[in-house]
Amino acid sequence: MNVELIRDIDEREFIRRLIGILESDDKDVIAGAGKDDCAIIKVGDDSLVVTTDMLHRKTDFPSGMSAWQIGWMSAAVNFSDIAAMGAAPVGLLAAVGYPPDMFYEEAAEISRGMHDCASFCGTSVLGGDVDIHDELTITGTAFGKAKGGQILRRDGAQVGDLVCVTGTLGGAGAALQALLDDRDVDSDFLKGLFEPVPRISEGRILAKSGCATSAMDTSDGLAMSLYDLAEASNVGFQIYESKLPVDKRVEQIASNSTDALELALYSGGDFELLFTVNSKHAKWLRGKSYLTIIGEVVNYEEGVSMVPKYGETITINRKGYLHMKSSENINV
Amino acid sequence: MNVELIRDIDEREFIRRLIGILESDDKDVIAGAGKDDCAIIKVGDDSLVVTTDMLHRKTDFPSGMSAWQIGWMSAAVNFSDIAAMGAAPVGLLAAVGYPPDMFYEEAAEISRGMHDCASFCGTSVLGGDVDIHDELTITGTAFGKAKGGQILRRDGAQVGDLVCVTGTLGGAGAALQALLDDRDVDSDFLKGLFEPVPRISEGRILAKSGCATSAMDTSDGLAMSLYDLAEASNVGFQIYESKLPVDKRVEQIASNSTDALELALYSGGDFELLFTVNSKHAKWLRGKSYLTIIGEVVNYEEGVSMVPKYGETITINRKGYLHMKSSENINV
Repeated sequence: MNVELIRDIDEREFIRRLIGILESDDKDVIAGAGKDDCAIIKVGDDSLVVTTDMLHRKTDFPSGMSAWQIGWMSAAVNFSDIAAMGAAPVGLLAAVGYPPDMFYEEAAEISRGMHDCASFCGTSVLGGDVDIHDELTITGTAFGKAKGGQILRRDGAQVGDLVCVTGTLGGAGAALQALLDDRDVDSDFLKGLFEPVPRISEGRILAKSGCATSAMDTSDGLAMSLYDLAEASNVGFQIYESKLPVDKRVEQIASNSTDALELALYSGGDFELLFTVNSKHAKWLRGKSYLTIIGEVVNYEEGVSMVPKYGETITINRKGYLHMKSSENINV
Repeated sequence: MNVELIRDIDEREFIRRLIGILESDDKDVIAGAGKDDCAIIKVGDDSLVVTTDMLHRKTDFPSGMSAWQIGWMSAAVNFSDIAAMGAAPVGLLAAVGYPPDMFYEEAAEISRGMHDCASFCGTSVLGGDVDIHDELTITGTAFGKAKGGQILRRDGAQVGDLVCVTGTLGGAGAALQALLDDRDVDSDFLKGLFEPVPRISEGRILAKSGCATSAMDTSDGLAMSLYDLAEASNVGFQIYESKLPVDKRVEQIASNSTDALELALYSGGDFELLFTVNSKHAKWLRGKSYLTIIGEVVNYEEGVSMVPKYGETITINRKGYLHMKSSENINV
């Protein structure tokens, strides 16, 4: 008998094995487990994208987070996957396991946070399930729809494409670092960590433009996302340190510039979009201040590397931030 | 400050309050939280129905259940809600929190159980989320689609309609009773409890026929479902003890006929469909041996009552089986 324990298996290997068990030849399924940020189902002429994420107190809700923020976060992590597909959100379900000794008002605030995030994303909480659980546990499931071809996938990046990200990098990781170090940080800085903003509008613009060749979100950190996109598209990436939009506050938190770069590359929780654009559309990117070109797509054999500000090109490590390690999405 | 604890609030009252917080005027949402077994979203010309259920070791997986059965059950409870809407299943997402010391082979068996149930329902597991959790926790989310009007709702029952159920009643409750009493029962009998069969085909036939005026599943027991349907349709029900399709094995487990009736009325876990049909379609019901007429729809003021085999008409209590008490679905 196979007596291997789950804790002794690498998580991506574990996911790969489960995907093997779940494989099917369902004709309605355009992309199933393991292929994209969301699974894609055909419903009439539209594509429906769906994703689910289980969060719980110990791993996902650092102390200092308000109940409203817990609700917002539980919705946002799911809508970020919808954003990464370039789809329009059409609802959220939330199954919540509440500890029996939680105050009602806290539960109400969690619901308000979810409602407000769904509302920000142009949709609503459709319902869900309430359960009693020792540890606060929230599973959100988000839905999005897209017209035929207006959908962002992971597997279309081509050599020569430009690599871009939305927003800035490392902010959430730096905020978590400050929290763990018990440093005095203002609540505004913690917002990036506790209230991630799903890039719904940006995803929709990219999908409608037809310019993006591949996309995913950076919830597991930039480095991990570059590797995931590289694998799905069978390409490599070369990015430039000088071009990385590192959040200014990251440099204030980090003790030196190496640490700041580490946070920008390897910390999770930013929920930005990482995507590629055919270079003939470079003009289209101009003037869109929320998008930054950080590098280009290269051959698979060249791997994932970075040209530093000074010195030789280095290989980026395939690693994500520990905060995220115990929560891997099969759809990631 | 409101210092009310969750454990001190009646669950249906708790759900009602949360629904109040989550309310929205989203135009894509045909039916949201609290209205039906599933929420309904408009996607193109089709209706998409969605539902989610969080299950966990302590409350939902009695010892004696195999890992494969845990997987099957986690999928089946969700597909039963899809069946209650008369929709065609188009996928399942599963977010699973595994205890770190679980054997890999157990996790694999859970996935196989889910896969087999999805496959039985004509669809597949699209993906999900894997997480590490102290207590085994599984949140399934199922999707179904239906053409415009071909959908079963809770709010259409009319006075004079016939009340029907699929299959038999009380089997799951009796099996659980036997388990709790530590009685020797064969594995075949436990199947009804551990491997509920979602009534997908029956739901589809009902929805396509256009004969059913209302429907829901009996996961919380017949009595509770009659009350839910009565409330949604603003009607009452009169059912006949002599017509109830009580599982033969229920009578073997129960110590007397009163106990058998209690199980048939108040025990959950059967996952049959309860529905109403306009009496002009009575002929249509004939020859469908998997459907039983158990009574008729009466005025709201007459409440939910039963004509016993002997004696005066009695009021059916509004109660469900304890097994289900800690897991209430907002969509129920």
